[in-house]
Amino acid sequence: MADPKSLRDLFVQKLRYMNDAEQRLVKALPDLADAATSPDLKQALMLHLQETETHVDRIQQLFGLFGEEADTDTSDEMKGIISAADDMTDLDADAPVRDAALIAAAQVAEHYEIAEYGTLKAWARVLGKNEAIQLLEWTLEDEKHADQMLTEVAGRLNLQSAMPHAS
Amino acid sequence: MADPKSLRDLFVQKLRYMNDAEQRLVKALPDLADAATSPDLKQALMLHLQETETHVDRIQQLFGLFGEEADTDTSDEMKGIISAADDMTDLDADAPVRDAALIAAAQVAEHYEIAEYGTLKAWARVLGKNEAIQLLEWTLEDEKHADQMLTEVAGRLNLQSAMPHAS
Repeated sequence: MADPKSLRDLFVQKLRYMNDAEQRLVKALPDLADAATSPDLKQALMLHLQETETHVDRIQQLFGLFGEEADTDTSDEMKGIISAADDMTDLDADAPVRDAALIAAAQVAEHYEIAEYGTLKAWARVLGKNEAIQLLEWTLEDEKHADQMLTEVAGRLNLQSAMPHAS
Repeated sequence: MADPKSLRDLFVQKLRYMNDAEQRLVKALPDLADAATSPDLKQALMLHLQETETHVDRIQQLFGLFGEEADTDTSDEMKGIISAADDMTDLDADAPVRDAALIAAAQVAEHYEIAEYGTLKAWARVLGKNEAIQLLEWTLEDEKHADQMLTEVAGRLNLQSAMPHAS
């Protein structure tokens, strides 16, 4: 794959990374949900899995809007994020503590995507691609909403019960 | 290093990751600034380097507040983020396009940190560590401000000049 020369090329390159990132997340979210104890958290993660599958579909549509074949390129960022999240799934700690660690890991994934979709949306605007802007806006709103929902779930964890060392 | 059992242990573990992440960013930011063409962008990245050095200092203070020796643990996330950013530094494209790619990469780093410091601040609140909350709040505000500044710099890039393929 040649170096991207134009903003359009760069946009398409980033779509390939996001295609990989979202597909990795589709594989990882069920493991995070399995490792979660709080029913609230399990539900939030499985709901976001459904959204993430929609995001993969939207990426295929975005390739189409740019007249490109859908393709993937390894997202080093999401690879690192999921590797760190995996380390939390078998954390030998009280359930609320492990849940807190899983939420933190999932929120890193959300923030990565918020950054990237924010960039893609800004670039789509420069490129004058209105239909792309709309698709990216929907996904961006899903990611922000998922992040916010995870913050709310974290606030309902019974973390006080898990603090032998708290001062 | 034993598995963290309590929220306090998890907090200290995350500090070790952030200690590594911030130190990696201190090393990476000058390379991003070197690769940047826009004087605005160079300045924003070098200003954030100074802030990042302060963040490293604050992490050492946070270890102290928790009665722990400062230590590091590899942040897989920041490692992946910087690897992806490095790929953008030698992008053979017009200057505004490379600058746009560098901004996008830096914003991923900011969002990773926004997620992690948001988590640490929430945990410090549960742990009742007021001085830690204050230090984390300052760093979190720096990261959000850096992200916003990069969005503003991106808006001033002359990307229209670099669009041979734009529709």
